[in-house]
Amino acid sequence: MKVIINVFLKEGVLDPQGKAIHHALHSLGFSNVNDVRIGKQIVMHIDAIDSIDAEAKAIEMAETLLANTVIENYSIEIAI
Amino acid sequence: MKVIINVFLKEGVLDPQGKAIHHALHSLGFSNVNDVRIGKQIVMHIDAIDSIDAEAKAIEMAETLLANTVIENYSIEIAI
Repeated sequence: MKVIINVFLKEGVLDPQGKAIHHALHSLGFSNVNDVRIGKQIVMHIDAIDSIDAEAKAIEMAETLLANTVIENYSIEIAI
Repeated sequence: MKVIINVFLKEGVLDPQGKAIHHALHSLGFSNVNDVRIGKQIVMHIDAIDSIDAEAKAIEMAETLLANTVIENYSIEIAI
């Protein structure tokens, strides 16, 4: 089962990589761009019985390893 | 208009970050995980007339700055 975990910095946490890309886009003439934020997207295949099982495993992985929940949020998508 | 650009290494291109996470997950006991790959997700707001205009701008940004199209693919989602 294909599982996608998106990890993002929480609102209010400074995102220097996003700021850098925002600045670079402005320099290239894309002046109509705002609020650029960068996250990680982790795509994996999990052997699971069903999507509920896969989601439970993905949450456990996100909490223990993939996201730093002090400063990051995560979302999980299950694509069968 | 909220635009999400996902940038991924192409199939066949070595993904050491994905391999490292795969290994770490196995060490933590998540043995039923395979094919871990890591990408960037860039979220931004674009001032655009409509979603077609926003997508055209996002493609231009991805081609010129956000993705290295030699080794990376990208996908674009428009969320109004």
